[in-house]
This record gives sequence, structure tokens and C-alpha cells, in this order.
Amino acid sequence: MGSLSARSLPGIAEVVPGDDVAALVAAALAPALPRSDQLVAIAHTIVSKAEGAVRELATVEAGPRALELGAAQDKDPRVVQVVLDESAEVMRAERGVLIARTHTGLVCANAGVDASNAGAGDAVLLLPRDPDASARRIRARLRELTGASPAVMITDTFGRAWRIGQTDVAIGLAGLMPFEDWRGRPDADGRPLQATMPAVADAAAGAADLARSKDSREPVVVIDGLGRFIGEDDGPGALALLRPREEDLFP
Amino acid sequence: MGSLSARSLPGIAEVVPGDDVAALVAAALAPALPRSDQLVAIAHTIVSKAEGAVRELATVEAGPRALELGAAQDKDPRVVQVVLDESAEVMRAERGVLIARTHTGLVCANAGVDASNAGAGDAVLLLPRDPDASARRIRARLRELTGASPAVMITDTFGRAWRIGQTDVAIGLAGLMPFEDWRGRPDADGRPLQATMPAVADAAAGAADLARSKDSREPVVVIDGLGRFIGEDDGPGALALLRPREEDLFP
Repeated sequence: MGSLSARSLPGIAEVVPGDDVAALVAAALAPALPRSDQLVAIAHTIVSKAEGAVRELATVEAGPRALELGAAQDKDPRVVQVVLDESAEVMRAERGVLIARTHTGLVCANAGVDASNAGAGDAVLLLPRDPDASARRIRARLRELTGASPAVMITDTFGRAWRIGQTDVAIGLAGLMPFEDWRGRPDADGRPLQATMPAVADAAAGAADLARSKDSREPVVVIDGLGRFIGEDDGPGALALLRPREEDLFP
Repeated sequence: MGSLSARSLPGIAEVVPGDDVAALVAAALAPALPRSDQLVAIAHTIVSKAEGAVRELATVEAGPRALELGAAQDKDPRVVQVVLDESAEVMRAERGVLIARTHTGLVCANAGVDASNAGAGDAVLLLPRDPDASARRIRARLRELTGASPAVMITDTFGRAWRIGQTDVAIGLAGLMPFEDWRGRPDADGRPLQATMPAVADAAAGAADLARSKDSREPVVVIDGLGRFIGEDDGPGALALLRPREEDLFP
């Protein structure tokens, strides 16, 4: 019999540039300490804020393409300019939605640029510059502060092709296997499971989001029960979850 | 503080056509009874088997299109014929993968036709004919057997565009809200969350899958902590999670 449990941590208030996210997590857990078989899932919003991954729209000048896309999609052209700055490629621009591939290879609406949750003022929140590096840094700092090395995951909320609504996915990862590779192993009837690679990290991101309420200030969720996927090594990170563009059937 | 917990139920052995899935779930839970604020997540494999949603390949004759696709994609043309029979539309046939839209509107590899986990013999497993109806039927039967009405979800394992690996999603649903509709509600800073509709059921399906191991015979997982999404009414079902084809940006 297997089991999984997740609980959100209260008490992480507004985060500002320069804040030590690991210290905030450790303080929210205290007097308990994290354990090295736990996963700490952190909404990217607080990581982005701590890293100063914010653009003030007053400082953004929309170029010709942003003006054109903004007019066509009924969006603030300065926000569109920020999306273009964050994008390697705009894949779709339809129905008021921009689907983009970011410079790190994530495919999502608006290249992860978020006008909600950016804090007060005329600003938009970006994704962390290198979310895997952010996760590794937070993990190392948690170890320093607490002596334990829980896995650390940074999450964002993505839409999907073909299905309505959003689920959280892993965009940064340290210490958790992004997926379990069952290719070639036998199923319950002894046949090889040909293409089975459960995306453990994305499922865990979804579980973390279910453990909190969207309007609560609970960006951090601790998950128990995934120890078999957690290692001392930081592992390949969440970038390993990205299908190379040339292998994708829906570019 | 929010929390979520999931545990898989041991003791559900091989399922055969005509089996009463609700009775198997109730027996696996016993002596405990389910509660009406719980979600019972059931891998579609046992529902399909109980419903006899299986095709014996010996009885399948591949038509011209199945022969052609089978040769091009290096697949058994009889399996391809079954995929075609289950498909409203083949969306992609590349790299040995068929991505299809099923008659109920699900977009997935091989229209959900599964050669793994089909049981002994030369057979393939199909998706339940009407997974929402199956979920409603199992829920009603659980109520009959136990007096409680936990929500019931039927899951399958789907690949995704742009990301490697699979996650479980909800294909049938009774009593659980498929998503939470936050459109127009304010975020933590008071701004409206424009397009936010967390796909609660898909996240729960992912959480359920994390609570078991892939080669275990544990098709049923009970989830606590989602009571706020569970109602007496069966609700719109998992079909509500499907984006209409004409609104999809990646047809």
C-alpha cells in the first residue's frame, strides 16, 4: 500500500527582492525541521519576487511587433513586449492568447509573464531566470540552515492543449527525479511497458496545488511519501521534462 | 493551512467482465467505510475489464488504412484498426505514435487502446464506452453498498504536448468538480484572476498515481482533503474538461 500526503505552510507573507526563500521556508516549518525524504514545492511567484524577476511596465517601450500583436489580441502592448522579451518563439497568437516557448524551453501562455500576483503597482512578474538553478540554490541553503536536504521544486500554473483549465507543473527541480523510467520493465502481466515514464514531478506539482487554496498566501507545500524519487544528488532538473522542439508533434 | 492525503488500496486482484467494481472497492476498504467527502480514484483498466471493453486481436481484420498506417508507423495493423475504430480523428501519425481524438473527445496516444495491462492473451484494452456514466454508476452502487457517496473518478495515463512523460488525468467523474472556476475572483492582491480555472480533477488524478507504484496491482486510491470540491450532485463529469475542437489552438 502506498501513500502520499501534502500540506501547505502558513505564515509566508509578502516576499520582496533579496529575500531568502529557504529561510522563509525553514521559519514557516519551525519548530519542525524538514526531512531529506520530503519534497518542498514552492510557487515560482515568491522565487521570482525574491530574485527581482519583475518588470515595471512604466519602463517598457513596446516595439512594432508588440504593438501589432497587442492590437490584434486586445492586450497591453507593453505586456506583449515583455512576453516577446521572454520568448524564444511565439507559437500561437489567437483568441487573446499568446502561447510561447521561453528561452529555457517552457511552452506556456504569455511565456510565464503574469500580471496577477505581481504585487502592488504597474508591474508584471516573470519566471525565474534559471528555475533549476534557483531550486538547487534553495536546496543548498535549506541544508545549510537545517541540516536536512529535502528535494526542492519550483512550480508554475500552465494551461494544456486539448483540455480546459490549468494544472501546476515543475519548472525547477533539485533532488527529485523528474520522471520514473519504466520503459522496458514488465507490467503486472509481465509485458514490457513500452513508453511509460510517469512525470512524477508534474504530478507532485499538481498535488501540491490541491493542498492550498488559490487566494491563500500559501506558496509553499511540503509533500511526504515521495522518498523513493528523492536523492542526495540534485539530478537533471525540470528541464529534462521538456520535449525537444524537433521531437514535438505539436510545434 | 490546507492538506491532502492519498492512499492506495491493496487487495484488488484480477478483474473480469461482469465484476462489480464498486463491490471490489468496498471490500478493499472494509472494515472501514468510505466517506462522502472522499474521492475514490480508479484506474480505468479495471473498469474497462469489468465492462468487457477488450478486443481480441484474433477477431480484428485490418482494413486498408490500418495496413498503411501500421506499415508506416511499425505497428501491428490489427492494433491500428482497433485504434481507428475508437477514433473520431487521427491527429498525428509520426515517430511510431498515433495521436487520436476518441469518439468521446479525449485526445491521447492510440485513442486509449492499451496493449499493456490487457491481461493474458492476444487482446487489447479499450477505454470504457462512456467513462462519466461508468463513474456515476460506480458511485451510485457504492452508495447502495455502503450508505456513503464518495466522489468517483476514473483515470487514464496520458502523454502531453511539449513535455516528456505521462500524467494521469480524469476521464470519468461523478461528484467531483472537474475544475474550480476562479475567473473574475480577486487574487491575493485584489486583482481579478482572469483565466484561472484549476483543473482539480486532473491534479487529483496525478496525486492518486503518485500514491501507488506502477507495477503494483493497486488500481484504486482514496483521497482525503478535497471535500470542498465534492457534492451530492454528480456534476458535469470529466467531459467538461475537454476543450472543444474548434476552440483548440493545437488541433
